[in-house]
Amino acid sequence: MPGLSADDGALGGARPSARKTFFRRLGIPTPPFHTVDSHAELETALKQIGLPAVLKTRRMGYDGKGQAVLNDPADVEAAWERMGTVPLILEGFMQFEREVSVIGVRSTNGTITFYPLTENAHTNGILSSSIIGTTPDPLQTVAETTARRVLTALDYVGVLAIEFFQVGGKLFANEMAPRVHNSGHWTIEGAETSQFANHLRAILGLPLGSTAPRGAAAMLNLIGSVPDVARVLAVPGAALHWYNKAPRPGRKLGHITLCTRDDQTLSDRLEHLRAILSAP
Amino acid sequence: MPGLSADDGALGGARPSARKTFFRRLGIPTPPFHTVDSHAELETALKQIGLPAVLKTRRMGYDGKGQAVLNDPADVEAAWERMGTVPLILEGFMQFEREVSVIGVRSTNGTITFYPLTENAHTNGILSSSIIGTTPDPLQTVAETTARRVLTALDYVGVLAIEFFQVGGKLFANEMAPRVHNSGHWTIEGAETSQFANHLRAILGLPLGSTAPRGAAAMLNLIGSVPDVARVLAVPGAALHWYNKAPRPGRKLGHITLCTRDDQTLSDRLEHLRAILSAP
Repeated sequence: MPGLSADDGALGGARPSARKTFFRRLGIPTPPFHTVDSHAELETALKQIGLPAVLKTRRMGYDGKGQAVLNDPADVEAAWERMGTVPLILEGFMQFEREVSVIGVRSTNGTITFYPLTENAHTNGILSSSIIGTTPDPLQTVAETTARRVLTALDYVGVLAIEFFQVGGKLFANEMAPRVHNSGHWTIEGAETSQFANHLRAILGLPLGSTAPRGAAAMLNLIGSVPDVARVLAVPGAALHWYNKAPRPGRKLGHITLCTRDDQTLSDRLEHLRAILSAP
Repeated sequence: MPGLSADDGALGGARPSARKTFFRRLGIPTPPFHTVDSHAELETALKQIGLPAVLKTRRMGYDGKGQAVLNDPADVEAAWERMGTVPLILEGFMQFEREVSVIGVRSTNGTITFYPLTENAHTNGILSSSIIGTTPDPLQTVAETTARRVLTALDYVGVLAIEFFQVGGKLFANEMAPRVHNSGHWTIEGAETSQFANHLRAILGLPLGSTAPRGAAAMLNLIGSVPDVARVLAVPGAALHWYNKAPRPGRKLGHITLCTRDDQTLSDRLEHLRAILSAP
């Protein structure tokens, strides 16, 4: 789903600049960004990145807190006035075609394996769906190469997710999450070994399980309200995961995994599920 | 696996005679049995069933307690002497070709569905393995008809297992278990909806999920001792379920689910797993 987005911190929480600097150090393309520690650096950053852009505090800022969207030059000085006393980062918006993520697993013994790339959609900065088809994604190898570099550089053990923006045939690393990840929840029913089982295998130094998908699969987050459970479960291949949380707007309350044999059936049933979820 | 067995109470616990009487009342073939409340009835029972046979108390007797194997006429009077004061049942041994079980699910709204028949093997009266192949069992319909009669007669809600002895092309109902059942544990990874998920759907009156297998599957019980977990998990398609119990001879400590695409691979990997489990 094409979109226009700056890093919204959805994946990793605090310190987006540390992650982006880390990606850059490893030679991994990222959306444009520039650290800002003075008014002069802000001017350099603006020249490089242009407007619109987002000015953020480099620490303790996420989910839109401690950040200012700069649409025109007038916004710049107001934001500097308000935020200029702490370390900042200026991030450019990126016109992307798709958001995808790769889930990698690295064991204590260094073995690495990857799940198929999922295509993700966000609504109001919250992951709403992750989809994998039966055909391998043409960017699978590129994503794996990036993730392998990250896992190895960190001497990481366990499951790690990296989220990318796709522009043309290129992937730009936007975020990473050092843990089992929402965009990998489809693996519970949809893969031969779930990301949870493989995380345990990895940290225990046990052989990693197959990450092969069992067919096409999708994960739909249940955000804010309780769906009609009977209607959801009447959809063939749908499984419900409920987190036992109190409903609240914008809160992830659970998710649906949908597994089918082919892409067309997945697409049809997803449409059906979305209609159920959006029913009043 | 051919065998010679009387009801060992493995599936249901107490009151085997009540279950067998129930089967008989529904016109479901069972292994030979006769209730015994007097010495005269014992003689009638012996004439009908012959030796060898097992004399059991009708209540509070299971796992070999409160029962006597009668191999020759001398055993009969000794057993009567010891047990004759309480309600008894005489059961015949049955030379069977296979032990199979069917898992049925019935919802509060009366919807009924079945998992494919599993072929079971017992060791010392404890279930050791359950296997389903990719080809439907020729006795599937017969087993379903029997189970449907039982579920309906009991106005049952939830998962129920019935275990049969196969002799020739016929099934003899040996036991039933009104619950999710060990011979259905392969469904956790091996079926589109597990018996646990379907039990919950059934008792909550939610639509039942597909019971279709994802391929070939097997369940191997882990009895008495801890296997080499790393070797087990190195077998492709193997998942380990550990119950966090203290090891003790004869105790079910966990099980392995094995899923493969075809029967031959299942058979090869099962052999490999059995070798791992029997390694000292």
